[in-house]
Amino acid sequence: MKLTHLDERGRARMVDVGGKPEVNRTAVAQGVVRMSREAFDLIAAQGVAKGDVLTVAEVAGVMGAKRTGDLIPLCHPIGLDVVQVEARLESDLPGVRVTATAKVMGRTGVEMEALTAVAVACLTVYDMVKAVDRRMVIEDVKLVSKTKRPSHNS
Amino acid sequence: MKLTHLDERGRARMVDVGGKPEVNRTAVAQGVVRMSREAFDLIAAQGVAKGDVLTVAEVAGVMGAKRTGDLIPLCHPIGLDVVQVEARLESDLPGVRVTATAKVMGRTGVEMEALTAVAVACLTVYDMVKAVDRRMVIEDVKLVSKTKRPSHNS
Amino acid sequence: MKLTHLDERGRARMVDVGGKPEVNRTAVAQGVVRMSREAFDLIAAQGVAKGDVLTVAEVAGVMGAKRTGDLIPLCHPIGLDVVQVEARLESDLPGVRVTATAKVMGRTGVEMEALTAVAVACLTVYDMVKAVDRRMVIEDVKLVSKTKRPSHNS
Amino acid sequence: MKLTHLDERGRARMVDVGGKPEVNRTAVAQGVVRMSREAFDLIAAQGVAKGDVLTVAEVAGVMGAKRTGDLIPLCHPIGLDVVQVEARLESDLPGVRVTATAKVMGRTGVEMEALTAVAVACLTVYDMVKAVDRRMVIEDVKLVSKTKRPSHNS
Amino acid sequence: MKLTHLDERGRARMVDVGGKPEVNRTAVAQGVVRMSREAFDLIAAQGVAKGDVLTVAEVAGVMGAKRTGDLIPLCHPIGLDVVQVEARLESDLPGVRVTATAKVMGRTGVEMEALTAVAVACLTVYDMVKAVDRRMVIEDVKLVSKTKRPSHNS
Amino acid sequence: MKLTHLDERGRARMVDVGGKPEVNRTAVAQGVVRMSREAFDLIAAQGVAKGDVLTVAEVAGVMGAKRTGDLIPLCHPIGLDVVQVEARLESDLPGVRVTATAKVMGRTGVEMEALTAVAVACLTVYDMVKAVDRRMVIEDVKLVSKTKRPSHNS
Repeated sequence: MKLTHLDERGRARMVDVGGKPEVNRTAVAQGVVRMSREAFDLIAAQGVAKGDVLTVAEVAGVMGAKRTGDLIPLCHPIGLDVVQVEARLESDLPGVRVTATAKVMGRTGVEMEALTAVAVACLTVYDMVKAVDRRMVIEDVKLVSKTKRPSHNS
Repeated sequence: MKLTHLDERGRARMVDVGGKPEVNRTAVAQGVVRMSREAFDLIAAQGVAKGDVLTVAEVAGVMGAKRTGDLIPLCHPIGLDVVQVEARLESDLPGVRVTATAKVMGRTGVEMEALTAVAVACLTVYDMVKAVDRRMVIEDVKLVSKTKRPSHNS
Repeated sequence: MKLTHLDERGRARMVDVGGKPEVNRTAVAQGVVRMSREAFDLIAAQGVAKGDVLTVAEVAGVMGAKRTGDLIPLCHPIGLDVVQVEARLESDLPGVRVTATAKVMGRTGVEMEALTAVAVACLTVYDMVKAVDRRMVIEDVKLVSKTKRPSHNS
Repeated sequence: MKLTHLDERGRARMVDVGGKPEVNRTAVAQGVVRMSREAFDLIAAQGVAKGDVLTVAEVAGVMGAKRTGDLIPLCHPIGLDVVQVEARLESDLPGVRVTATAKVMGRTGVEMEALTAVAVACLTVYDMVKAVDRRMVIEDVKLVSKTKRPSHNS
Repeated sequence: MKLTHLDERGRARMVDVGGKPEVNRTAVAQGVVRMSREAFDLIAAQGVAKGDVLTVAEVAGVMGAKRTGDLIPLCHPIGLDVVQVEARLESDLPGVRVTATAKVMGRTGVEMEALTAVAVACLTVYDMVKAVDRRMVIEDVKLVSKTKRPSHNS
Repeated sequence: MKLTHLDERGRARMVDVGGKPEVNRTAVAQGVVRMSREAFDLIAAQGVAKGDVLTVAEVAGVMGAKRTGDLIPLCHPIGLDVVQVEARLESDLPGVRVTATAKVMGRTGVEMEALTAVAVACLTVYDMVKAVDRRMVIEDVKLVSKTKRPSHNS
């Protein structure tokens, strides 16, 4: 077992995906922003505003996913067939849970795109709420599932 | 108490910092990538390679901080006097702890820059290690401190 | 009278703003997306969805304003104290009217930032509605006002 | 008939193009910058300079088309086989007419790329001429044609 | 023989690659940063630090390659199967030699991606060493080889 | 004498410019693209076209300068008061010589902005001419001068 991003001399490198087949790849990632009850209630209480905080976070997550190759040094720049980001209030945290799904027909997996969408959406929630709660924590950012299936064209 | 990023009708907005004074602002943020013992040992065992994983993550974090205004919709685009990112192995996690410091003489705080640096550095570690551990979790991403002091010129 | 972006030999150039004073500058720009009555009614009818189309356009406009220096070759890269973008349905058009305000304390005006916000917000509306109306037109994109006033510090 | 960028709950989403065939897609878009006769004459009179204003706008348009996925939240990031942008003086407006053509072999149309090219080229003309005319208007930005034909490989 | 980036009227244009076959394309480029013996010795003497200067340059080169389409106006935006950048100290120069390899299965060559990786890596070395040597020169940036071979799928 | 971009442990870092005064800083850089006589003659022979190759390179150089902080990991993101790029044919090379001037009132020098402008302009010339000459070399990229003078406001 070895770190694929290190070459034989232990130096960082991008993995060559030239020989991999083009298949349909999907990845789902998740994360949460945990906040004070007071901050949570402010978001939850604001009707349309609530929609806005979550919508802005979702839009930022989708756009963040498209910047993955710009941000993560050894990630491949890829097209994406779709990115879906959902941010929802969870009273139990209390806070916001973000779930992102990325799909592509391509030679390389899209878990980094899903994870980047989650991270950027969480940072966006943090930014919009930070004036009322400086102790928020972004946590539990992880891959939920990763699948691939052959292309219809094959 | 209210969400400063929502206007009186509850719509998302950028905060106007035009009236704020230019002061020296510093923010420190932190986060961790928790991984399997096996993955941790692989990074720790590789000598120069170890340096590389951590160095690549640090570089990515610094560059990510500079993209904050591009990624977070309602963040102000700002200059930065310095960004420092440190990624280090912590056997207790086991995993990597990332600490980022951002400073600017300006009208708006830099906690989002520090947090974005942390998030991007953690994602970069994740990317380089994901081939050997699919269950890593990015967590405990939070602000550690935030200070401001008057400019020497004032 | 001459084109300031052309030098004495008629070649394109950026204007040197080094000698200009730092003052508070504000610009307001506007534009519309004119669409079919049918498309307009679809947006207007969808309750939360309506909010979403307009909110997504507003977020895109704010982010677009921050990319102005990246997009317009001879524009100065600048900080921005605030960008506000409002997209609202106007039954008379029928369509969406976008208004953007950009402010900065700086050496160069911000009308291009306001206009870029408007253009990107209009393109975003177009993108979200194009499946039901291919004949939309973006028009009347123009500067509404431009002001400057001395800094409080002077 | 419905807005494809809204899901069943009326929330903004990217359209999943994973199931669409790869075909040759072409889109042509157009727009104008209408200006004062005086501003028009200044551009028209300057020989090489004239070339420069139009060339700079064309280059900006091509580069803008390549940034479409970065700017428009729900647009797919795609490769482009070609983007052509033509800016020409039209005495009748008076002003500059921009025409952009975008082509790709892909799963999603390229009208947003053509429209973004037009918008960015028009903004660039505006930027270069604004010192002599503050009342310019960007208008009539619209799709001229959109076609697709099967790939030679199919 | 003619300049493919100029149309029949001598105007700049992007080359239409729509009709070209998708083949495996590889390009290798090289360049050097020549510096004073003193600067060279400082880098060479610093153990881990040496690794850092070169690693940072390599990371910057890889990321630069991914931005090629953003930087070079008439370059196609493309995916990349891999980019490899190696920066190494050469006592004979004295200085740093950068070698970059870019590969893609696509319709257009990747020499600009390899050359951009080299240029950005060289600029990064320059930036890190400039405080001790202001007379460094970046030179000999050139294509070393360019090959294409049919896809396995054909 | 030491490498300012390495901290006491020899790790890469950004230099903290928070304590530096804001002064007017100017940097001039230069570089050349050396090509075959045949390629040179093609550019020189094409009248308006010639203007286009050089103009496109100049525009790319200006835009590249504005991306410096995005490309060079440890460079500060800064505003720029002006960037001027001149590309001209030199029969003696034969080839194109690019000269770039960057100015800012700020806390950090702008030599990297001037050098990045030169590098991107040279790469752009290369891109437009590569179909007729694969043996071009970018060379002699260096700082020509660097000055600073106190601000008028001090």
